[in-house]
Amino acid sequence: MMRLSECQKTLIPQIESGLQAFFNAQDFGSSALLKEMLAFHMGWLDASGRGKRLRPLITLLCTAALGGEVQSGLPAALAVEFLHNFTLIHDDIEDRSPIRHGRETIWKRWGEAQAINAGDALFSIAQLALLDLAQTVSPSTAVKAGRQFNQTCLRLTRGQHLDIAFETAQDISVDAYLDMIQGKTGALIAFSAVVAGIIMEKSQGELDHLNAFGSNLGLAFQVQDDILGIWGDPGITGKSAASDLLSRKKTLPVLFGLKNSPEFLQSWSDRAVEPQRVVQMAALLEDCGAREFAIQKAQDHTAEAFKALETLFPGANQDNGPAQALLDLSHFLLMRRS
Amino acid sequence: MMRLSECQKTLIPQIESGLQAFFNAQDFGSSALLKEMLAFHMGWLDASGRGKRLRPLITLLCTAALGGEVQSGLPAALAVEFLHNFTLIHDDIEDRSPIRHGRETIWKRWGEAQAINAGDALFSIAQLALLDLAQTVSPSTAVKAGRQFNQTCLRLTRGQHLDIAFETAQDISVDAYLDMIQGKTGALIAFSAVVAGIIMEKSQGELDHLNAFGSNLGLAFQVQDDILGIWGDPGITGKSAASDLLSRKKTLPVLFGLKNSPEFLQSWSDRAVEPQRVVQMAALLEDCGAREFAIQKAQDHTAEAFKALETLFPGANQDNGPAQALLDLSHFLLMRRS
Repeated sequence: MMRLSECQKTLIPQIESGLQAFFNAQDFGSSALLKEMLAFHMGWLDASGRGKRLRPLITLLCTAALGGEVQSGLPAALAVEFLHNFTLIHDDIEDRSPIRHGRETIWKRWGEAQAINAGDALFSIAQLALLDLAQTVSPSTAVKAGRQFNQTCLRLTRGQHLDIAFETAQDISVDAYLDMIQGKTGALIAFSAVVAGIIMEKSQGELDHLNAFGSNLGLAFQVQDDILGIWGDPGITGKSAASDLLSRKKTLPVLFGLKNSPEFLQSWSDRAVEPQRVVQMAALLEDCGAREFAIQKAQDHTAEAFKALETLFPGANQDNGPAQALLDLSHFLLMRRS
Repeated sequence: MMRLSECQKTLIPQIESGLQAFFNAQDFGSSALLKEMLAFHMGWLDASGRGKRLRPLITLLCTAALGGEVQSGLPAALAVEFLHNFTLIHDDIEDRSPIRHGRETIWKRWGEAQAINAGDALFSIAQLALLDLAQTVSPSTAVKAGRQFNQTCLRLTRGQHLDIAFETAQDISVDAYLDMIQGKTGALIAFSAVVAGIIMEKSQGELDHLNAFGSNLGLAFQVQDDILGIWGDPGITGKSAASDLLSRKKTLPVLFGLKNSPEFLQSWSDRAVEPQRVVQMAALLEDCGAREFAIQKAQDHTAEAFKALETLFPGANQDNGPAQALLDLSHFLLMRRS
């Protein structure tokens, strides 16, 4: 995994300093606390966990793999990371999540009203970052990317709408679930790849392959998350075993189990899930093939993602370091245990 | 006021059908309820009160007054109206307002989580609308307008941040208050005018005058609102007399009174304001000159707005119908009694 780690060593500091420089250049006027809230959320006020900056890394790797300059793709890389963080701020309010990256969430610390508003500010900053493609590439590229970016935002809100609706819905099909995570997780990772193709003025066919790569990577990543949320090693994931069962999250294995295991359905219907019972519930899911089904789904999407990469960058292509790093990154994400 | 009403008769239907056509062209996929929530908020599901569509009217009147085609400015007009409505959705959650335009607010009807998310969807739609300036004018104009648009969004969130902070703050100066409403109300009305200048590729000097016009109009409009919230005729405003005192809103007259009338400060400090006492409180404000002060502020900003208009469109300018309509509109907004 040298190729990926070398690319990361060069690119992550560029992403991180780019994010901070762009953020600090914005005019917060007399609203110093608004700036502080966002800096806190981005992980710049203490040394504790930041996000992985996965999406901007994908944008820069794709740009470089397509033969472009990292600098030309940087505005888009910053935009996807700001946008991702905006969605986290609002999602945490909507899901009532008190903790993120080991820190209090914004709404928990400063109240909901200020948190909604801070998210909106970060959304605007993401848009401003993206428009800088007019400088690094051209105005018409910035417009094309901007349109795709905001269609992606709309897709995200559609996914989030379904996610919230599913909390109280009775009968959710596997297809409806996949449509939801396609919006919530797939769409932005897909954009992170596609925007590189827009920057490099690639054909619609190539944009479609980039979209297939990112979209399938996002889906596989999310399904992997679902598996780890039930069968992950608590020592590695940092969550309690089967924590998604405890919190009654309707993830892919659960939806499969509700359809295919009357025993699991029975157990799930006793509303209060006691910690002692989750081990048994996880076993019921495993018995009815829910784990196997989810693993298969993750593998299918992984295979699609690799197929798209292979089409984009055929052969071993030893000379294309960034393309190899993209392969490594995909392997790494899909083999991860936390 | 014929000139304004004639322009309105032509432009409001174009704005309204433009908004609906653009909205209906968006892909809501399987999230039909998300679309319904937004259509409800925009006032398209029943015949009851819609917004005044004031901001897009300003954009189109300014575009026409500067000699441009209404069609070229339409994407910007739609964008400012969608953006304004996005801010209303989030403001209503943040302020816990249950009613808007005589209808339940989105969060009241569908819950906070869905309402936050629906607002985000409308924000994205506003951005998409604006980018269509690339078609009606040029990509570089769309980028320039997009940058200004998102700086305006950031300015709005700064204003909203202060507004929320002021709810619990002790000592708010008149200047801090004016800075806040400059963000909350002035910035978007200013953009609605400035974007016409960007579309018509006007000089920075002319953009500054458009900005001064919109910004001062917005400030005068808000201060007028503050006056009506205390001394407005309930039969005309549709609110109970002195309703802003009842809800303890820290508006301009109140802030002036807290500084200049020990009796008002005393009365305000008894936290529970009883309906019987608001008449006396309004009288205390009037006695200490708070009403006079607010009227003077509104007049000062009105004068500045007219001065900017006069600079942009000098003389009686009988031939420039849209410029005359802008004068009428300003008169109308600032003389209104509700």
